[in-house]
Amino acid sequence: MIIVLRPGASREQIDEVITEIRTLGYEPSPIIGVAQTVVAAIGDERTQHTLESLNVLPQVERVIRVQKRYKLASRESHPEDTVIDVAGVPVGGPGFTLMAGPCSVESAEQLFATADAVKAAGATILRGGAYKPRTSPYEFQGLGKEGLRLLREARDRTGLRIITEVLSERDVEHVAETADILQIGARNAQNFQLLIECARSGKPVLLKRGLSERIEEWLLASEYLLAHGNPNVMLCERGIRTFETYTRNTLDLGAVAIAKRESHLPVIVDPSQGCGRADLVIALCAGAVAMGADGLLIEVHPNPAEAWSDGQQQVTFEGFRRLVETIRPFLAAAGRQPAA
Amino acid sequence: MIIVLRPGASREQIDEVITEIRTLGYEPSPIIGVAQTVVAAIGDERTQHTLESLNVLPQVERVIRVQKRYKLASRESHPEDTVIDVAGVPVGGPGFTLMAGPCSVESAEQLFATADAVKAAGATILRGGAYKPRTSPYEFQGLGKEGLRLLREARDRTGLRIITEVLSERDVEHVAETADILQIGARNAQNFQLLIECARSGKPVLLKRGLSERIEEWLLASEYLLAHGNPNVMLCERGIRTFETYTRNTLDLGAVAIAKRESHLPVIVDPSQGCGRADLVIALCAGAVAMGADGLLIEVHPNPAEAWSDGQQQVTFEGFRRLVETIRPFLAAAGRQPAA
Amino acid sequence: MIIVLRPGASREQIDEVITEIRTLGYEPSPIIGVAQTVVAAIGDERTQHTLESLNVLPQVERVIRVQKRYKLASRESHPEDTVIDVAGVPVGGPGFTLMAGPCSVESAEQLFATADAVKAAGATILRGGAYKPRTSPYEFQGLGKEGLRLLREARDRTGLRIITEVLSERDVEHVAETADILQIGARNAQNFQLLIECARSGKPVLLKRGLSERIEEWLLASEYLLAHGNPNVMLCERGIRTFETYTRNTLDLGAVAIAKRESHLPVIVDPSQGCGRADLVIALCAGAVAMGADGLLIEVHPNPAEAWSDGQQQVTFEGFRRLVETIRPFLAAAGRQPAA
Amino acid sequence: MIIVLRPGASREQIDEVITEIRTLGYEPSPIIGVAQTVVAAIGDERTQHTLESLNVLPQVERVIRVQKRYKLASRESHPEDTVIDVAGVPVGGPGFTLMAGPCSVESAEQLFATADAVKAAGATILRGGAYKPRTSPYEFQGLGKEGLRLLREARDRTGLRIITEVLSERDVEHVAETADILQIGARNAQNFQLLIECARSGKPVLLKRGLSERIEEWLLASEYLLAHGNPNVMLCERGIRTFETYTRNTLDLGAVAIAKRESHLPVIVDPSQGCGRADLVIALCAGAVAMGADGLLIEVHPNPAEAWSDGQQQVTFEGFRRLVETIRPFLAAAGRQPAA
Repeated sequence: MIIVLRPGASREQIDEVITEIRTLGYEPSPIIGVAQTVVAAIGDERTQHTLESLNVLPQVERVIRVQKRYKLASRESHPEDTVIDVAGVPVGGPGFTLMAGPCSVESAEQLFATADAVKAAGATILRGGAYKPRTSPYEFQGLGKEGLRLLREARDRTGLRIITEVLSERDVEHVAETADILQIGARNAQNFQLLIECARSGKPVLLKRGLSERIEEWLLASEYLLAHGNPNVMLCERGIRTFETYTRNTLDLGAVAIAKRESHLPVIVDPSQGCGRADLVIALCAGAVAMGADGLLIEVHPNPAEAWSDGQQQVTFEGFRRLVETIRPFLAAAGRQPAA
Repeated sequence: MIIVLRPGASREQIDEVITEIRTLGYEPSPIIGVAQTVVAAIGDERTQHTLESLNVLPQVERVIRVQKRYKLASRESHPEDTVIDVAGVPVGGPGFTLMAGPCSVESAEQLFATADAVKAAGATILRGGAYKPRTSPYEFQGLGKEGLRLLREARDRTGLRIITEVLSERDVEHVAETADILQIGARNAQNFQLLIECARSGKPVLLKRGLSERIEEWLLASEYLLAHGNPNVMLCERGIRTFETYTRNTLDLGAVAIAKRESHLPVIVDPSQGCGRADLVIALCAGAVAMGADGLLIEVHPNPAEAWSDGQQQVTFEGFRRLVETIRPFLAAAGRQPAA
Repeated sequence: MIIVLRPGASREQIDEVITEIRTLGYEPSPIIGVAQTVVAAIGDERTQHTLESLNVLPQVERVIRVQKRYKLASRESHPEDTVIDVAGVPVGGPGFTLMAGPCSVESAEQLFATADAVKAAGATILRGGAYKPRTSPYEFQGLGKEGLRLLREARDRTGLRIITEVLSERDVEHVAETADILQIGARNAQNFQLLIECARSGKPVLLKRGLSERIEEWLLASEYLLAHGNPNVMLCERGIRTFETYTRNTLDLGAVAIAKRESHLPVIVDPSQGCGRADLVIALCAGAVAMGADGLLIEVHPNPAEAWSDGQQQVTFEGFRRLVETIRPFLAAAGRQPAA
Repeated sequence: MIIVLRPGASREQIDEVITEIRTLGYEPSPIIGVAQTVVAAIGDERTQHTLESLNVLPQVERVIRVQKRYKLASRESHPEDTVIDVAGVPVGGPGFTLMAGPCSVESAEQLFATADAVKAAGATILRGGAYKPRTSPYEFQGLGKEGLRLLREARDRTGLRIITEVLSERDVEHVAETADILQIGARNAQNFQLLIECARSGKPVLLKRGLSERIEEWLLASEYLLAHGNPNVMLCERGIRTFETYTRNTLDLGAVAIAKRESHLPVIVDPSQGCGRADLVIALCAGAVAMGADGLLIEVHPNPAEAWSDGQQQVTFEGFRRLVETIRPFLAAAGRQPAA
């Protein structure tokens, strides 16, 4: 770590910092600059006490970390791309994965029609929410176990793999019986107990980025999954919260390229949540492909205007077919082939 | 709700919207404007299907909610201030509550010394983390049950009530045996399953605002607690995430006045998390008092430079005494007396 | 406009609002809802007094605009794409425009070498700053008139058109003698006097989006140019300010698709400012093409490590050639051909 | 500066960085850490070429500035508080200054009535916009020179000093004939040419913080004024742009305490722009006083509902009297006396 002292720090004050650095287990190396002194503290920042607490000393202006805080998630620790085996369907690597389906599972009819439609258009993984995190307690909270049962039936009928969200530590075990991928939503992006529980399930996990999560924090959240023994982690960019009001969130497509560079994990893009507007979803999908995404997570509904949740961001069957058509040349330009 | 149609929408398109509004259970009332048509949809927005899904229709430009989405939390539903009984200590109302203690419980010595110091200075509630949500899995995660045991002992020794954070649904029951107030942290601000579990415990709950949570969403999260049968909810402003880098977060003191106006719940301010800098804590406390806060939650440590977590934002015993001295005249100006 | 009254507003209070709406020139149309009353105020919002001032009445909860505030910039007013003639080089339409060159003009040698390199790689427009807006008064502020002279010489040598930033109303006239496109930077995005002056020059203008400018405000700023008689306006997305610290700004690629939909103006993307990191520029360019951008504005320097400004975000000659190679298949996928 | 190299940088790569640091005029001092190497570059960062350009080298992970970038604005360079003489009225120091008046000057009647009312309540400086920066070109742009004439007349009648905004470099000279304080608005916060022109006028300047301006950038903008020879600079916090939608902006009251600590300049708070809601203005004023503000800038109008601009955030005469009453005990608590 680097400890920057205030201009005019006295000899005694510098010595106090040096002593404290030693106490906390680092080797101090002071550098006397033109305007002020900095002290480099040599030691492993990841395993030792942070020195950020030295900020409380009046002579300390700033403490700066040097090392990256994530390790298992880093490209340095694992130079090749991770490819995840989702019950026989690879995610990551040269292929490109389409995950699609309704925001919420509403009925057998709605789910099965959607499953057939997205499969026909090229999806290999079916999404559908059985447990829904809703901003208001008065909104539809999902069909729960009945929703999971319908998802299992959809898998049996179509062969599509299943991705579905888990909201509660207590649900992990039974959701994992249905899900091929456990989805952790943006509001639970730093619900570390849920992450640990999902890690223990052994199932592949798709980890959404939180609404105001820095990329470093997103990778550190994935580090919770990796450090608790689950290597099958997908990152999912789904839009961050900004001042812009035209869209629900601002999809941060640059984060796709950064996450691919910093990390070896597959990166999926969810443009439906990202913009909250079905009419922008297709354009954003092309952008995601160009930025190097490994797959897409798309909300598709037979009749979005009457959907029980988030209808405004779901595309129709016809819309999904057009989407797949539109991204095809961009996939070719990016050197990717659809997994299907 | 108000549905704004695009300029130039045809008669058929307007009729389609009107029909859909009826299908979804509202009574449509169209208004033909100079440039475009809007349709008011009359009905109870809180109990019925939202019409936001109509945004998927190409002729719809925007759908605007009219009603507030929270009800039990609203000042309209409960005009008087709520006063919460925390094991005999009132929070809210004319009094002012000081909650103080270390970020993390580290040892008996550290905790008891701090408890004595904050009690002597006027605090009535002792804070201390036994379970710590840390951005990195490699950081100190709290002493867990041993930390809870020390908190109980501190209560027995000093008579201070205890506030401590709960991270996991599974911990709610045993944390509630120690805690007089269950604290829900910013990262769990929309972990609705944890909220529901805390509601069921019957214990008073302090609900921190999420890092990028709008005030409406914060009140809707409190609505989860209230709607699940727990009326003893305190709101806690602790800083939001912005572009500013000088401080860790931007303490939104305006939100205190807004929350007090929109809601009847007590509002506590946590300036330690808010700024992440001990040297700003005192000034922010005076501001919080002036804005109408009902209490403060302050991190205090015998030796912040060697604290096991967030040392940079913890004040010393002497700093805490100075803080209490400094806010005294502002409390008088605000017409508040300390609870102690 | 829509005026939402608070629940429980009295008959007299509703009448007061209705009277005030009439006084301000609108025709009121009240709608009695289940929980509260709303009053639609019919009239042209763009030419009349706004009713937002009614928010000061205690019985008014919210005032909502219905009409879009921009007109000349809107796709409705001008359904076809605008193609701008930049001294014979078209911008917008089926072609795709590469604008490239150094952040600052530093010397004849630096500028001419860069001009030759970017021309060889396919650029048709040379960028180069003669007047630089710098955060600190102690940083290099540009070569000024000498920089403009070198830009003219570069045009004479290469035939490239010139884009350069103008910072001051007083400079517009003489910068316009050199520039084929006047660039308005992000910090001046709402410097309306500068916009008006640029409009009057008759020269094509590239208008960057401000650091925290909503898309609506960006289009309203372009409306200043259009309403003051200059139809030759390009929009330029260059990254918005968010909480993320990995990149200097967050390039909002979704805004490209939105601006193309809402407006008929060409949209250029500046990924160099957007990310502040040369190593991400290429990926972001591919994304910009996929999102429908009409061109790119790229910072290129013979030796970025020693550049006088913003070296960290400038690409080398070799980097620029690779960039052009990389985006070629994406341009084909998007159905665009380079202007060159 | 500190240059952090990537883990695994080779000896040659380290040497390349060291050589480049020397070329750019700094003295390199390498430190070999456990995981990676950092090189401290000793030299005056404020007068020399920045090393941030070294980020383009693949072996460089990060470049960190050590020194503060502002100098004349810093508390270090000028430990005592600056007190500004505004035509005989001091701003800064032990007193507290009330600046109040209409958003826009609309008529003699409106201005003079407001001037009388705010003077009676304790204001010493009259605000009023003659040139208005409006988001849309179709909104009222101010009375211009006629507005200035009315302001002069108001000064003659009441003895109040005048603060008014200047939008254009070309207007500085004639606005300075009327204004006792030149106001630079948030949208021009980094319009450096306007700042330089205002500096040259010699008149006191009130510099608003930009909508997404970091505190460091705000102080650097003030440095433009100071470095161009004008020591009479007031900082004005007026709210930053965040994701929150309840208020127009988020007033950053913490920034008041920070600006007072980092700088010696007086800090004024504008809560009217800050929240965009008259009903919150009073609470925010009390908060501003508690945070150490040196004065307030308040929008007051005889009939806000019919104001020509921003009526929703203007208080009535009665509201302003109540405001002054409300803050009185907080001023006493803060040890301040009103200037009047």
